[in-house]
Amino acid sequence: MNAKRLEANIEKLFELAPDEGGGATRLAYSPEEARAMLVVAQWMEEAALLPRLDRFGNLWGLPPHEDGPIVTSGSHVDTVPNGGRHDGALGTVLAVEITKDLDGKLGVLVCAAEEAPRFGAGTLGSRQLVGKLSDEDLVSMRDADGVPALEARSEYLKLLSSIPSLEYLDLLYRVAAHVEVHIEQRRSLKEQGASVGIATTVAGPARYRFRFAGSTGHSGETRMRERRDALCAAAEVVLFVERLARKAASTVATVGTVEVKPNALTAIPGEAVLGLDVRGTSAEEMESLISNIMDRSQEISQSRGVDFSAQELSLSGPTALDEGVVKLAEEIAHREHIPTVRCVSYAGHDAQHIAEKTPAALMFVASSNGVSHAPEEDVDREDLEQACKMLAALLPELKRNHGGGVGR
Amino acid sequence: MNAKRLEANIEKLFELAPDEGGGATRLAYSPEEARAMLVVAQWMEEAALLPRLDRFGNLWGLPPHEDGPIVTSGSHVDTVPNGGRHDGALGTVLAVEITKDLDGKLGVLVCAAEEAPRFGAGTLGSRQLVGKLSDEDLVSMRDADGVPALEARSEYLKLLSSIPSLEYLDLLYRVAAHVEVHIEQRRSLKEQGASVGIATTVAGPARYRFRFAGSTGHSGETRMRERRDALCAAAEVVLFVERLARKAASTVATVGTVEVKPNALTAIPGEAVLGLDVRGTSAEEMESLISNIMDRSQEISQSRGVDFSAQELSLSGPTALDEGVVKLAEEIAHREHIPTVRCVSYAGHDAQHIAEKTPAALMFVASSNGVSHAPEEDVDREDLEQACKMLAALLPELKRNHGGGVGR
Repeated sequence: MNAKRLEANIEKLFELAPDEGGGATRLAYSPEEARAMLVVAQWMEEAALLPRLDRFGNLWGLPPHEDGPIVTSGSHVDTVPNGGRHDGALGTVLAVEITKDLDGKLGVLVCAAEEAPRFGAGTLGSRQLVGKLSDEDLVSMRDADGVPALEARSEYLKLLSSIPSLEYLDLLYRVAAHVEVHIEQRRSLKEQGASVGIATTVAGPARYRFRFAGSTGHSGETRMRERRDALCAAAEVVLFVERLARKAASTVATVGTVEVKPNALTAIPGEAVLGLDVRGTSAEEMESLISNIMDRSQEISQSRGVDFSAQELSLSGPTALDEGVVKLAEEIAHREHIPTVRCVSYAGHDAQHIAEKTPAALMFVASSNGVSHAPEEDVDREDLEQACKMLAALLPELKRNHGGGVGR
Repeated sequence: MNAKRLEANIEKLFELAPDEGGGATRLAYSPEEARAMLVVAQWMEEAALLPRLDRFGNLWGLPPHEDGPIVTSGSHVDTVPNGGRHDGALGTVLAVEITKDLDGKLGVLVCAAEEAPRFGAGTLGSRQLVGKLSDEDLVSMRDADGVPALEARSEYLKLLSSIPSLEYLDLLYRVAAHVEVHIEQRRSLKEQGASVGIATTVAGPARYRFRFAGSTGHSGETRMRERRDALCAAAEVVLFVERLARKAASTVATVGTVEVKPNALTAIPGEAVLGLDVRGTSAEEMESLISNIMDRSQEISQSRGVDFSAQELSLSGPTALDEGVVKLAEEIAHREHIPTVRCVSYAGHDAQHIAEKTPAALMFVASSNGVSHAPEEDVDREDLEQACKMLAALLPELKRNHGGGVGR
């Protein structure tokens, strides 16, 4: 395996759809994601894999002349707006390259529409694959232009019509094990002297839309004591969320979106809508934090004569990954002198959904600077090489251990 | 004067450009404002006035065969998005109707682009008229689609090309006195048993754009203690502004606009921009409050590792209106048994700018419910009738007192 070739292919994906901000923009189920999938499908052919598309838009690379169990690896190729070069791309390129070097029974699975910004929720391809997301669900997810995810998927699939469709709808039954490699999204591995992080748990994100409805009015003519300012109520909640999360042991919470109406300099905000994202590895702590936030939001609003309502956008608890695969990876690390640590993922990934159907692992390659979802995202070559070593040893081992089974 | 006819004409303007929210939308320098001006120009002709347009888009109704001093009245016909039926329209319709009933030397002045929402600043027509706003200034004011106010004005003037242009650029030299009648924008007159409020002072709005620049990052993967969340800094400032204004004697302050970037559920806000509007009748208190807000915003940002910058969008102190005209109006109120009180305007109006060139008065008709800039805005007929009585007596009196002069 050649790290330079890996880097060159990562760069090819990065250059497909440059963003004026210096990064790459290949949004979920966009023509740009489709273009990246076509490039990967061609690499699959060069690696003697058969590219196949499932009806959710996930791209499979299957070993030819095989219909038994396979071990797959891969990640995704869509990005956030103005994203970096490694998120998704690293794990995808690595998976294809590994199959070139190793013999048979190894497959590639590149999941579609992993990133959340376009439709307000991510891992669309993998969640459809495991049956957790229906076509109906996709109708109600809309992007900023009002396009439903189902319509976007259908346009995206048309652009990929040159790739043969899978004969069987559900190919996961053949996947004996799956490994997703991903760039680390904080700067923690380097601090611990590790090149590779082996995730044991993925923090489940709980997401809410908080709406505060007060009353608008002229910013000059309405006396302070007469106001029911929705933004002031929302601001109190933003600070309460921060205060609570700072005290939490294993939970983080973020208000990432705000919209006020009428959003005019001369008008008191009559409505404010916040988007809240809470993630943790302890279901108990998450639940307690969320219920505290709800209660306090209600109190704040009531004391201001503002109406408060909360809508749950998504709710998933922490997912524990397969301990057997984690231990196997640790054995390999020990044997091959790969500096690794166990870690936790606070971001959602396709592997956590695939883990519901088959043993799946999620591994992180150390980030050189901790930057994620931005053009500056970067990985040192030596860490990339250690990840290659890990995957090249782990996949055949998994094939030997699980290859005869049919998944769980 | 017939209050029913007044109401019918107010309704005609209201129905010109209905908003789906139930109100009317005739934004500054929009085709809808132009349509309203065309309707008023026709009413002027029916009232035996000559409609004339100045190069700023203000519509004049001039008495024919006259070139001496005139006394004018009028307001505006543009609206905020989804505005009510009386704001601007009431004073405009009233001015035209009054000239029908009274003999000669009375004119009408309907100022263009009075409302601020479209370009972030209002009273564009009157400020150009008195020389406080240049074509260059209009180039840098842009609406949400990036259209400069100068371009919007030019499109708007084209739609009004059927109205003859003024031969002289500056007609204010002929205006011996000006009276603007406007619906009250709070519910204060009724509480005091008055139908009409005679403004002595207009609170000057000071407007700022506050920018907080922290750093964005993944909402799951960034630890709480590592964050530089721009929204949290902004939220502290929103609450500080409210706290300070609640303690002020004669100043109100509002954060009316918020924008965060990247505004995504999975990202910590790296940037937050607030729009602040401060108004008061005491220049000293306003200045002290603004300087307190600036200092505290700096402190809050510094303690969070966030960069803070403030941009002044507009700054005008309180304007005192002509005491002579105020006293004359009070005499008339006493004589004609019109229930009036002196008051202060916290909203900006064209009359405050015209007051810099000629004695000008600003009068409010009691609001029945205190609602402003919204479809529910309303006026009781008896209060409207009292306002008619006031204007019908005041304009001829002003004409007698000031008619021989040339303004100051």
